[in-house]
Amino acid sequence: MSHAKSAEPNGKSSGKSKDFMAEALHEAELAKQRGEVPIGAVLVHKGEIIARAGNRTIELHDPSAHAEILVIREACQKLGSQRLPDCDLYVTLEPCPMCAAAISFARIRRLYFGAGDVKGGAVENGPCLYHQPICHHAPEVYSGFRESECAAILQDFFKEKRD
Amino acid sequence: MSHAKSAEPNGKSSGKSKDFMAEALHEAELAKQRGEVPIGAVLVHKGEIIARAGNRTIELHDPSAHAEILVIREACQKLGSQRLPDCDLYVTLEPCPMCAAAISFARIRRLYFGAGDVKGGAVENGPCLYHQPICHHAPEVYSGFRESECAAILQDFFKEKRD
Repeated sequence: MSHAKSAEPNGKSSGKSKDFMAEALHEAELAKQRGEVPIGAVLVHKGEIIARAGNRTIELHDPSAHAEILVIREACQKLGSQRLPDCDLYVTLEPCPMCAAAISFARIRRLYFGAGDVKGGAVENGPCLYHQPICHHAPEVYSGFRESECAAILQDFFKEKRD
Repeated sequence: MSHAKSAEPNGKSSGKSKDFMAEALHEAELAKQRGEVPIGAVLVHKGEIIARAGNRTIELHDPSAHAEILVIREACQKLGSQRLPDCDLYVTLEPCPMCAAAISFARIRRLYFGAGDVKGGAVENGPCLYHQPICHHAPEVYSGFRESECAAILQDFFKEKRD
């Protein structure tokens, strides 16, 4: 059973999905400007963004302050629940194991991500958490949205760090 | 390469480790009294507990508010860093993928846990995250401390829920 579905190879996708990923990319850009790893996310409920964030691990001294965790926490506060079954999460990079598990615990309906992450991803790479027997809720997964842009902002960031 | 080491079969271990797990168990008991899943953790730095917590996912409306995440966040605030390389974490249950990954990101030195978790654990069960190529820091792992007590408090909690 596969949970993963890919966007069109040329990056085309439904207008809404495309727009929300653009918003996630904007959050990644803001993270970059703060000196954080440029990953961004938005959390969508009933067609509206109810939480948005980029990584803030350095600023907050919090290794758990990945974009996905921050939007999940904010959305949970707004909706007064630790579960978000009617919500969809858009994030520029494939989630790591921490975030992939938090997405599962929050019962998020759909996960859309931009670029895959061979080195740290846990959805379509590494442990493929949503296929593990210990995973008790798997979101629908859609990948490849604005893939090249989402990857480029990260590649540029790390290239600049090395130079 | 195995990262996991077991405590003595009879539960005997160094005095300090045993004491810290008793403190984690106390946090689990407090969590139970709050109606939360009874899992507790303490974070130890230079022989002193600098953060302690039980699960608070219900109270905080936060699916990431597992005991481990809460102590990592608190310790990072206290030490002013997102990394805790000189710290050891004691937790009553084998960490889930979210917490196991957060422990890795925080560069925690040693992880001591009480009971294994076949259904949700990610250290010695399921994806065995610290053995995955995407894991870039693995703590030393010691398991089986006060194992029966750590398991019993959870079993009793869920039995009471079902009855």
